[in-house]
Amino acid sequence: MKNRSSLHHKNLEKIFYPDSVAIIGANKMKGTVPYDILMSILNANFNGIVFPVSPGERFIAGVKSYKYVVDIEEQIDLAILVFPSAVCHLALEQCGQKGIKAVIIISAGFREIGGAGIEREERIKAIAEKYDISFIGPNCLGVINTDPRSHLNASFARKMPEEGPIGFLSQSGALCTAVLDYARAKHIGFSKFISFGNKADISEIDLLFYLMEDEKTKVILLYLEEVSNGKELLDAAKEVISKSGKPILIIKSGRTEEGAAAAASHTGSLAGGDEICDAAFEQAGIIRCDNVVEMFNRAIAFAYQPVPNGDKVAIITNAGGPGVLTTDSVIQNGLKLAKFSEETAKHLKRHLPATANRSNPIDVIGDARADRYNAAMSATFIDEGVDTVFVILTPQSMTDIDLIAREIAKVSSHYDKPVFASFMGATDVQEGIDVLQRNGIPHYQIPESMADALSCVVHFHKDQSKVSSVLITYNDVNAEKAKLILDEAVQNGRNFLTEDDASEVLKNYNIPTIPIQVATSVEEAKEAADKIGYPVVMKIVSQDIIHKTDVGGIILPIHTSNEAGEAYSTIIQNVKKHMPDANIKGVLVAPLISGGEEVILGMKRDSSFGPVIMFGMGGILVEVYRDVSLRVAPISEADATTMIEKIQGYPLLTEFRGRKAKDIEILKECIMRLSQLAMECPQIKELDINPLIVLEKGCFVADAKIMV
Amino acid sequence: MKNRSSLHHKNLEKIFYPDSVAIIGANKMKGTVPYDILMSILNANFNGIVFPVSPGERFIAGVKSYKYVVDIEEQIDLAILVFPSAVCHLALEQCGQKGIKAVIIISAGFREIGGAGIEREERIKAIAEKYDISFIGPNCLGVINTDPRSHLNASFARKMPEEGPIGFLSQSGALCTAVLDYARAKHIGFSKFISFGNKADISEIDLLFYLMEDEKTKVILLYLEEVSNGKELLDAAKEVISKSGKPILIIKSGRTEEGAAAAASHTGSLAGGDEICDAAFEQAGIIRCDNVVEMFNRAIAFAYQPVPNGDKVAIITNAGGPGVLTTDSVIQNGLKLAKFSEETAKHLKRHLPATANRSNPIDVIGDARADRYNAAMSATFIDEGVDTVFVILTPQSMTDIDLIAREIAKVSSHYDKPVFASFMGATDVQEGIDVLQRNGIPHYQIPESMADALSCVVHFHKDQSKVSSVLITYNDVNAEKAKLILDEAVQNGRNFLTEDDASEVLKNYNIPTIPIQVATSVEEAKEAADKIGYPVVMKIVSQDIIHKTDVGGIILPIHTSNEAGEAYSTIIQNVKKHMPDANIKGVLVAPLISGGEEVILGMKRDSSFGPVIMFGMGGILVEVYRDVSLRVAPISEADATTMIEKIQGYPLLTEFRGRKAKDIEILKECIMRLSQLAMECPQIKELDINPLIVLEKGCFVADAKIMV
Repeated sequence: MKNRSSLHHKNLEKIFYPDSVAIIGANKMKGTVPYDILMSILNANFNGIVFPVSPGERFIAGVKSYKYVVDIEEQIDLAILVFPSAVCHLALEQCGQKGIKAVIIISAGFREIGGAGIEREERIKAIAEKYDISFIGPNCLGVINTDPRSHLNASFARKMPEEGPIGFLSQSGALCTAVLDYARAKHIGFSKFISFGNKADISEIDLLFYLMEDEKTKVILLYLEEVSNGKELLDAAKEVISKSGKPILIIKSGRTEEGAAAAASHTGSLAGGDEICDAAFEQAGIIRCDNVVEMFNRAIAFAYQPVPNGDKVAIITNAGGPGVLTTDSVIQNGLKLAKFSEETAKHLKRHLPATANRSNPIDVIGDARADRYNAAMSATFIDEGVDTVFVILTPQSMTDIDLIAREIAKVSSHYDKPVFASFMGATDVQEGIDVLQRNGIPHYQIPESMADALSCVVHFHKDQSKVSSVLITYNDVNAEKAKLILDEAVQNGRNFLTEDDASEVLKNYNIPTIPIQVATSVEEAKEAADKIGYPVVMKIVSQDIIHKTDVGGIILPIHTSNEAGEAYSTIIQNVKKHMPDANIKGVLVAPLISGGEEVILGMKRDSSFGPVIMFGMGGILVEVYRDVSLRVAPISEADATTMIEKIQGYPLLTEFRGRKAKDIEILKECIMRLSQLAMECPQIKELDINPLIVLEKGCFVADAKIMV
Repeated sequence: MKNRSSLHHKNLEKIFYPDSVAIIGANKMKGTVPYDILMSILNANFNGIVFPVSPGERFIAGVKSYKYVVDIEEQIDLAILVFPSAVCHLALEQCGQKGIKAVIIISAGFREIGGAGIEREERIKAIAEKYDISFIGPNCLGVINTDPRSHLNASFARKMPEEGPIGFLSQSGALCTAVLDYARAKHIGFSKFISFGNKADISEIDLLFYLMEDEKTKVILLYLEEVSNGKELLDAAKEVISKSGKPILIIKSGRTEEGAAAAASHTGSLAGGDEICDAAFEQAGIIRCDNVVEMFNRAIAFAYQPVPNGDKVAIITNAGGPGVLTTDSVIQNGLKLAKFSEETAKHLKRHLPATANRSNPIDVIGDARADRYNAAMSATFIDEGVDTVFVILTPQSMTDIDLIAREIAKVSSHYDKPVFASFMGATDVQEGIDVLQRNGIPHYQIPESMADALSCVVHFHKDQSKVSSVLITYNDVNAEKAKLILDEAVQNGRNFLTEDDASEVLKNYNIPTIPIQVATSVEEAKEAADKIGYPVVMKIVSQDIIHKTDVGGIILPIHTSNEAGEAYSTIIQNVKKHMPDANIKGVLVAPLISGGEEVILGMKRDSSFGPVIMFGMGGILVEVYRDVSLRVAPISEADATTMIEKIQGYPLLTEFRGRKAKDIEILKECIMRLSQLAMECPQIKELDINPLIVLEKGCFVADAKIMV
């Protein structure tokens, strides 16, 4: 796992704040990437010196050019490589010889094209390692730092974005140009803007840690096409959020593709890659966004407005319809409509006409001019029962749009309370929107987006405590014994443990299992059943049989000694008939527990996130309703609580329509013990407890499968 | 119910296509509504004569003015009233005397302000009736007809919208100005644009039928704040859609408010007003939209492009990331990625560089110019495996945006196949977007919206057959006998039927009930149980007790005659203890059926939609998971099928993990019979069958409550 101390080797400071930059592969041809990058740097008024490096030119755009980077007389902090991919390694070698420690490789033609590209990427990685060079890319758009201390546009983006509190990281270069164009039109400013491409060296994780420390960055945005090391991303995000309080918003594409690749096993089919990703992001406190517009709608709420004290919203509108639609969205997003104080009510009564709606949402009526908006804002901003103010405007013939925009900026500047606005329409309202955006008032094309964005802010600040909760390690477990059983199974070439072995493993982690016995004769079956007490259930034990019901391998309920004997014979007969070659170890006898609620616990080792724990309601509720929750191990107590409470069937575990509440504490403990087992025993590939029966007091594993 | 023949009294043709228009209440003051309306008409180059009517002016804006409307020498087709609300009735009276049959009342100050406003509205309604006047409003923005045959802007909207195939109806006047501003920026054209305000006379239903017949309208949009007569809206929408094939898109605000007003009873809490609205819209084939942007994103897909042959999409992009995100959204919206033919593959191979991705989504790579887009489009448009083409563009430094936009318009014009585009960004791409919109290519700010819009189009055309499906009426029912029982209950002042009466009502509609008997002594209980056969269940029968479990009024399972006798005594004791004043009719004995799947059927009479039928899975599945579907009666066979298939638990009724399939045909029949019962017996306020046990063959009502 990377941590902050490893960052000091990454030379990221030199990438963002270089004193001197060499552009290797520069040329004089307008419209080419090397030329565009040079001009980007020159046009951005870079606070440092730029050195074009080109084998054939004496100067480019009036700037002295060098044949080789090693020819430059001064020390170079950062090199930008725009050389053809096939010879990039030669340029990088020269960078190493020159003592350059930070490089941006713009060139494409590496891993992303497969074949020779993969070799090329390995070659540059080797050279970088040899010379202790850190690099961004290859196959990227470059890097932008709007901080006046550097003001570096080391990219082929057309224009430098405005300065602002948003740090943007993108795996896709092409998306960056669209984002920059979008942001410029809306006066959204960036602190750092990084296209990291193939991330052959510097990854999104390194950059997350860098932005965590960057004073200019308040909000971190990340566009990802693959989560190559989910566990690392998860841990990094947790650390960044808990240490800096900066929100992380991520778009992760490939939802459905990943879903299709879901594993075939039972647990697997419930936990496709994208579901795990969703759960992991939630666990870390990452805000997952579906598209660029949604991401920026949320980002500007974090970036440009103070944190609200709570979830109570006042709505001011000059049109009833949008007021109602916004009210709907406030409630649907888990926020509340503020109730006004008596002073507010009086103030509104004094300053608004009788036809206006003076309760929340406040309708200042279609013919409202800036004075009425001012009155409504003044009253609501000062009201302690209001945490956030939403202002909606539709362009009526008498609406003084610009003036109202300026009033919003003015009034809100006197209070440490967030304000969002939605001026509906497009052409007529554009100038007003411009005023808002220049003044840092988040503007939304449709008023409902205000509620979504605010909801993200409110919940992010509410959930922060959960993210940093403590892990429990149980010392009463017998890891050695569990490992012994697992290792033996592996050594014997088995794919899964027998039921009694699985029970043994769980017992060693103090996950309660039902008292069971394995009988190998009619007499043993009778004795075992008598000893356990009736009613009992009997099941075949064989390492060759996973789905016992399908071969007639389960019989229940059994009420008497005779029935137990008969059941033994029937099971053996059934199995011999359906699977004559199965190696039969015996028949398991277990008490039949009634009452209690059946839940399932599962574990699956994900290639990106490591062990993932699943919890859900048992039986048809998991099969038909997929009512499950996932979390990446290790699971904290807060995680376990969330897992239990977030499933739809949670009321079934509480006091509900005459049922008694179930033992949720022991359930939490089981989840955490399972998490510990998964972390300590990597032999387990997959584990499926189905069902775990949760009683009013205590719980039992009734059936468990462990794959190794 | 209104039908098309009643429309001929509505004089709507005179409202949209008048030869002569009088503006009553006109004045010379710029910035006032009357002046703005006159100027709107003059500026729009109205194809007719406009007559200002003003007590104090000889002329307004150079146009001769009249003191009273009756003074006008010519016949007047349409009068626009912008008089103060308190004296509006005087002006309307004069319109009547003048023989004017069509009026638009712009003035506010009626029902929407309550009190005196309600009286005023009643007064104008009475006058309108006296003179057979049809009117739009009051409290509205007015009416716009872009048809060159009339070209009437009888509204105080700032500018006339472009001509186009969209008919827009709005209850909110204020929203109209925002919509017009939004549409103008995007070159979205309207056929008719109507703000209908308080709909004191002409309603959205009348207007729906008018737009159904209007040749200029291809798509109908409706913004509603209240569904005053849901049943009528439902029937009208069904008729419009089935007769004209025109899609209807509705925004209905007040989702949460209505939800909160949900009734307190069991069925009621499952079927809040907004859930009914959702279901009814779906049943009628109405496309419900959440906000204005979503509505227009969908409307332009219907309005400006041909109907696709199927659901297979080709994606062309110059950026991989957005291509992946769009692929996700295509799948998530129930569409498919097209598989290309060999010819297409060859064509792409010939014309695209080796680094391009030539499978779907096609990535023409960041440095693509118009020629590559052309190649990709030419190949996909001609490919019969492609039903719709999505074109995505991000603004790279070498992207010739305008030219690509023109290529899209040009290539697509040769094929009868829909094309949608998304040029990502804002400033740099604006000119290209403009080219697209002027050429009728639907453009979307984020590519994912293309999939949502197309999905609406594809599903609308697929579902149209369902909407017009035939109703079954069962002739084997005994409605008279059922009504007798219900009437008796009503006469006796009861709120709900006893269990055996409820059973009787259902039996008369051939909804199968369990053979039951009511015992009034220990001996009768034993006899009944013996006759029915064991195991049985026993339940208290009392009109004072609804929740039988709570008073110990149910005992099961009962296996012997003696147990039956004991159960009788215990139940009577329990009830006497918990509800000493309850009037006990006896104890019901019924067979205990095992196996089968428990479902519930319910009926609730909604004030707006009439009888609403509910179907859902029984037990906790309805209580915790709210897994229910709703439809408004009468229910067609197609409706019943949809109700059953759309719940999440549907697999439980089919062959599923070893269970046998249940009798879905009989279940459908029960739903339709219940619908018929609800339609024929208005005495029933609410009905709750919980559970209905569906077996492999047949089904039984195990418990039913009927409220009257």
